[in-house]
Amino acid sequence: MQPIKSPASFIGVNGDHVISFGSGQPDLLPPKEIFKNLETPRLFKYGLVQGDEALREALAREYPAAKARDFVVTNGASEALDLVFRAIHEMHGKVKVLVCRPYYYSYPPVIELAGLEPVYTDLKEGKIDLEDFKKKVRGVKAVLINSPSNPTGRVEDLDTLRAVEKLCAKLGVYVISDEVYKDLIYERENYLIKGKHVITINSFSKTYSMCGLRIGYLFARDPKIVETVVGLKIHTSMNTNILGQEMALRAMKVPRSFVERQTEVWRERRDFIHGGLIAMGFDLWKPEGAFYVLPKINPPTGGSGRVVSELFYKHKVIVYDGAWFGVPGRIRLSYALELPKIKEGLARIKSYIKGKETWLK
Amino acid sequence: MQPIKSPASFIGVNGDHVISFGSGQPDLLPPKEIFKNLETPRLFKYGLVQGDEALREALAREYPAAKARDFVVTNGASEALDLVFRAIHEMHGKVKVLVCRPYYYSYPPVIELAGLEPVYTDLKEGKIDLEDFKKKVRGVKAVLINSPSNPTGRVEDLDTLRAVEKLCAKLGVYVISDEVYKDLIYERENYLIKGKHVITINSFSKTYSMCGLRIGYLFARDPKIVETVVGLKIHTSMNTNILGQEMALRAMKVPRSFVERQTEVWRERRDFIHGGLIAMGFDLWKPEGAFYVLPKINPPTGGSGRVVSELFYKHKVIVYDGAWFGVPGRIRLSYALELPKIKEGLARIKSYIKGKETWLK
Repeated sequence: MQPIKSPASFIGVNGDHVISFGSGQPDLLPPKEIFKNLETPRLFKYGLVQGDEALREALAREYPAAKARDFVVTNGASEALDLVFRAIHEMHGKVKVLVCRPYYYSYPPVIELAGLEPVYTDLKEGKIDLEDFKKKVRGVKAVLINSPSNPTGRVEDLDTLRAVEKLCAKLGVYVISDEVYKDLIYERENYLIKGKHVITINSFSKTYSMCGLRIGYLFARDPKIVETVVGLKIHTSMNTNILGQEMALRAMKVPRSFVERQTEVWRERRDFIHGGLIAMGFDLWKPEGAFYVLPKINPPTGGSGRVVSELFYKHKVIVYDGAWFGVPGRIRLSYALELPKIKEGLARIKSYIKGKETWLK
Repeated sequence: MQPIKSPASFIGVNGDHVISFGSGQPDLLPPKEIFKNLETPRLFKYGLVQGDEALREALAREYPAAKARDFVVTNGASEALDLVFRAIHEMHGKVKVLVCRPYYYSYPPVIELAGLEPVYTDLKEGKIDLEDFKKKVRGVKAVLINSPSNPTGRVEDLDTLRAVEKLCAKLGVYVISDEVYKDLIYERENYLIKGKHVITINSFSKTYSMCGLRIGYLFARDPKIVETVVGLKIHTSMNTNILGQEMALRAMKVPRSFVERQTEVWRERRDFIHGGLIAMGFDLWKPEGAFYVLPKINPPTGGSGRVVSELFYKHKVIVYDGAWFGVPGRIRLSYALELPKIKEGLARIKSYIKGKETWLK
């Protein structure tokens, strides 16, 4: 069995009989309205590097007192993050960025690739430990927050988010708030972290089930950030694909009930997978947002990576190694797939862990 | 008059009555076949970070003895270049890259952003000066070639390309060959620079008039390059937008006559703008490929930047400053627009330069 070293081995893999709890992509369909009348020459020309004006105006209406000029449309949230860190490097040189651990697997590499240094605060039961955060935030230029979180499925408490917002404003530290799961919270409305020091990262991928189109954006009230990002993007990728931007604009016009109906689907799946794993004896947090669970599993040898390999090669089940998210000893399962597949996947996991109950503690 | 400092001010600008010789985007339409049956769920899911398998297989059939695994599909040639330089930095650290001047304006920034150092060889009458090239290539880890060239419109001689290919192979220097205008040569077939040390950069933007979709690719026979690029791209942008990849695949299936008919259109426009500028007294090279001319213009004060501002603010004509391409004292005009517009633009330029004939020498 070849060890599986990173999510790269799994992304886009859809073999026969494989059940993938791997990459976090909705199996739901995008709104049908986005397909109409695409055959227009405008959609094939270069567009503004900052993003289509109409799309940015529509986005501005979703944020309090925002203007179209505060947004940059990007190739998914990934490119937004990459450009923000490169912009911070341009503006401030080799500074430190505070990252909550467990983290989304791309965070450390994009920070390092930009020439910045990641430092870590360990989450406590999947949530920010304010005492540790307050210590670590001194000496960094930016913090990266992700609530709802991939991979924990946790949503930060309102008091915590307000404390982070206020403290960072006082210290002159950027808050980069990755809110790509903002429309996927089961417990409450999303809390938008606000201020001139805040850079909000978002995407159409999860809300409208259009991951493959790669339409994300950043929102910053500091014009210097926007200007620096656009100045980089003209060289690194030019405009974001225009057809995808047009489809994103159309998606924004569908009634809000589209998103609400989806949340109900996610909630049902969440309850099913959470209940199923608890019944098998797994130790995990109940997701409050997004569509991930992060149960503990600790074989006596080989670590959680061994579990990933064995589940894939022996049971055709894809799960991600917690080590990729900074927490070995856990595995991440995305439940962005149909209930019958979740059911079949859980059955395979059950047969795999039979006799291995001691690994789950 | 606010000075115009970079192409960023112009990209995507299409005001009333403005004649734009600015960004190099075809006004022609993409093949109509690419629009059919887009309403399929597969096109909205994450895909392979390396690029759609079918598209890479189709690309492999266009290159001698190539395999699908030798390609990475990117957000335009821009992202391909950005990722290649970042990959070279990953593999070799802070090395030097030899760039031909005049250069495409993004070359120096993407090289520097990746942490590499650009060094320059000045073209002689718009073509590689082999004597200077041979001197400068010692001490660099990569050279960046662009034939047909943006902004010169020149095509390198076959002997020169073969000499570069051979010398760099001997020295263990990468050749990054940006061939995005390979299907737009008026004089001969394109010459593909070959070898394990070669990274070919290409795009669907110019050949199929689909700039806005941002589908480019790189082709490298060295698996280490491909692997490093894919390892970066998973974090910086994930898969390239799937819908654009599907459309690129369909575009590849249209008969070759589509491309040939386009070349005839470009040739007619080339002859028209070249003849028109010559008749006005401009000193310029006759383009052998791509769709740019780079005439000299040197006002006694203010440089070519003054010409760019005055043409834009007083005559509503967009041209690019040679300084953005490393050659102040020239302006770049793209002739990727309809003949009547070229004609109107030339008339405006003629009225602007009246009495300024001494600036053209």
